[in-house]
Amino acid sequence: MSAVALADATGPSPAERAVAYRQGVYHAIAWNFGPMAGMVKGEMPFDAKAFALKAERVAYLSALPLEGFIPDSLVGDSEAKPDIWDNMDDFKSKMQTFETEAGKLADAARTATALDALKPQFGKVGQACKDCHDNYKKD
Amino acid sequence: MSAVALADATGPSPAERAVAYRQGVYHAIAWNFGPMAGMVKGEMPFDAKAFALKAERVAYLSALPLEGFIPDSLVGDSEAKPDIWDNMDDFKSKMQTFETEAGKLADAARTATALDALKPQFGKVGQACKDCHDNYKKD
Repeated sequence: MSAVALADATGPSPAERAVAYRQGVYHAIAWNFGPMAGMVKGEMPFDAKAFALKAERVAYLSALPLEGFIPDSLVGDSEAKPDIWDNMDDFKSKMQTFETEAGKLADAARTATALDALKPQFGKVGQACKDCHDNYKKD
Repeated sequence: MSAVALADATGPSPAERAVAYRQGVYHAIAWNFGPMAGMVKGEMPFDAKAFALKAERVAYLSALPLEGFIPDSLVGDSEAKPDIWDNMDDFKSKMQTFETEAGKLADAARTATALDALKPQFGKVGQACKDCHDNYKKD
């Protein structure tokens, strides 16, 4: 049986599924984060309802990636650095910060009618992304 | 500028981002659906709390993929059939059925203490997946 046929027969490994899962969640986060960034930068008009929905989705999704960082799952096209598993407490802390800040943005967006009121908290969410990526994501 | 450099400079196209988004959401759904299926099949012990959390996440995620099926987004490794865009009302209806049945499973799982009480509704969620895949997902 060829390697390809074997892969077809057995399906993805747990590590491969974990990578697909966590990358999938990050793609879903980026899909929602992007238009908010576009509004904040003035590249698209502010739509309070759309912003609130996207903020709510990012907040929900922010709690999901962590469980995908299972041991021995640096496979395929994973962009995770091995440092994650050497510093899991710090990684968890940074993920928690992201979750907390994203939750605050969703709360604020639920009632905000002006973009200016959301910009500082949006910046904190972006900073939480960056703090983790700078340490734990390959370039 | 080479094609690769151009891609690096411009980033993914809207169609490529849409594919990454919707596939990402489906990966996140599968990650949560799989262990529920394992419990239903008796391949792993029933854990009511874990089941409820996964059912809740699938219900939340079930509302997300549709907006990723933007026009002219059959690119890259998309497994979507062009029939989706020729039958968008039917596709939306099948996605709504998935969302409705997944919501019912999450509601039931919130209070259920026995797996048998969840099996029929879990079957309906799986059938909703299959009904859409049979029509609109490449083999």
